[in-house]
Amino acid sequence: MAAKRPAALELLAAALAELPGIGPVSSERLAYHLLEVPKHEALALAHAIQRAREEICVCSLCANLDQSDPCWVCADTTREQGTILVVESPRELLAFEASGYRGLYHVLQGRIAPLEEIGESDLTIASLVKRVQGQSGLEVCIATDPDLEGEASAELIRERLAGSGVKVTRIARGVPAGATIAQVQHTILSDAFEGRRPLD
Amino acid sequence: MAAKRPAALELLAAALAELPGIGPVSSERLAYHLLEVPKHEALALAHAIQRAREEICVCSLCANLDQSDPCWVCADTTREQGTILVVESPRELLAFEASGYRGLYHVLQGRIAPLEEIGESDLTIASLVKRVQGQSGLEVCIATDPDLEGEASAELIRERLAGSGVKVTRIARGVPAGATIAQVQHTILSDAFEGRRPLD
Repeated sequence: MAAKRPAALELLAAALAELPGIGPVSSERLAYHLLEVPKHEALALAHAIQRAREEICVCSLCANLDQSDPCWVCADTTREQGTILVVESPRELLAFEASGYRGLYHVLQGRIAPLEEIGESDLTIASLVKRVQGQSGLEVCIATDPDLEGEASAELIRERLAGSGVKVTRIARGVPAGATIAQVQHTILSDAFEGRRPLD
Repeated sequence: MAAKRPAALELLAAALAELPGIGPVSSERLAYHLLEVPKHEALALAHAIQRAREEICVCSLCANLDQSDPCWVCADTTREQGTILVVESPRELLAFEASGYRGLYHVLQGRIAPLEEIGESDLTIASLVKRVQGQSGLEVCIATDPDLEGEASAELIRERLAGSGVKVTRIARGVPAGATIAQVQHTILSDAFEGRRPLD
């Protein structure tokens, strides 16, 4: 005979197991945890999920996440309007913000990944092409990850923007600041040599 | 200037970070995930949490979790009523069910753990003592984990039940079925020798 568990517990564990990185053992542990903590604590998580989904929207210009449309970046007219930095998701947008970048962004909502069945139509490439139409003074800098899928995405965007008159650039690959040359990977050193610049 | 993120996103990440085993990096990743999946999928998790907290209750007899009180074990009069197996949580209860045990249970809701500030009053020991009062034919078998805290909890329960007339037992420690003697830890072999029984 199979052991009986309340249906509501089974459903909760199943919903938790849908989260990335949460396997069947973790989801069960989390389900029991949510039953054991004070009720208001468990409900706080439920309400936070609902509130986030009700209040947060996708910016119709750049696809960033915010509670207003256009988002806080696109609405800020004091920002440098001549550069659009193309990032994979809002997390990379925040990373560039923290680095001091003050131009505009375009959030791809992912990157080309055939194995995960993520193709061009899943990304915001078409809306980027439309966004830059007729703006010949613009620079679009592609800041997808420096890996196979990021490079493939960058190449596709470059193709789609060809002939639009905008200047398309790619973030630099090289030795990360603070690295010890003797310890970084050979491919990084190769990138750094390839991208060498004259010292003026 | 600090990067701006929607308040609803910050709140969601904070609520997720309250879950055990979910650090700040994971909670952020999960928060973005819940914003990226189809809305009904994110809300399904919120509803599962609410439903679990509304429908699942603690059995007033044995402290097991179920959608009815008394729980499905306590309500089943065909079960062997002479033995109460004391387990730490409903998960251990299910493990014993799967092993074929068909007596009663008492769920401690934890174990004595001074470092985590879990003491006797956090457990259901008092309700166990009350439950067995006047039932001298009963056996209470303590099935807390075979580690320091489990043994301390077992010893405390034994003390509290002393003089109640019930027979208090402890699950056996020994070599687990299927083990290779040469590879099990010395403490397990020592337990196994200590608990040796005559072959009749």
